[in-house]
Amino acid sequence: MSNKPLIALTPPTPYYAVIFSSVKNVDDGGYNDMATEMAKLASEQEGFLGVESARNEVGITVSYWKSLEAIKNWKANTRHLVAQKQGREMWYANYKVRICLVEHDYQF
Amino acid sequence: MSNKPLIALTPPTPYYAVIFSSVKNVDDGGYNDMATEMAKLASEQEGFLGVESARNEVGITVSYWKSLEAIKNWKANTRHLVAQKQGREMWYANYKVRICLVEHDYQF
Repeated sequence: MSNKPLIALTPPTPYYAVIFSSVKNVDDGGYNDMATEMAKLASEQEGFLGVESARNEVGITVSYWKSLEAIKNWKANTRHLVAQKQGREMWYANYKVRICLVEHDYQF
Repeated sequence: MSNKPLIALTPPTPYYAVIFSSVKNVDDGGYNDMATEMAKLASEQEGFLGVESARNEVGITVSYWKSLEAIKNWKANTRHLVAQKQGREMWYANYKVRICLVEHDYQF
């Protein structure tokens, strides 16, 4: 994570965002290792543009992608499917995923 | 904030999301009071659907809205304009705002 920008350096709009909002269970054994692995694996996928993440009571991870197809491929990644299953069974009390078209952006 | 859901209870898609990603300055005097005031004021706006927020090194606040017009009206809110100016002058080292159409969502 060391040389990753905190705010993703995304290209000009339009592109896609996946907002993953989650509340963790108290017992989250194995979560950190898997989260680190998934962050690395996601960043290696075709069409990946960047990611931002923060967690307090709620965790928010926003990943950015070139296309809906890139998002679909990442969702169906074999190792990611294992992580999703463990997430539902062990780590998350609840979560919500939102697939978004980023129409406009600006910065300071 | 006490009775607010951690993950926003948004209606069926489509709706809009504003992803506000920021890195704060070390000296952020007055920030917390203004952030609390803005969270309350935003929630009172026409078309506001909910908000999620977390901060570590990077802060991510995602607010959800019925329409682009609701987002535009909130951006132009007089008191919010003051907050935006103070944000640029005092609180934020940098930030990025992304206006998104939420096309699809699912939850667990």
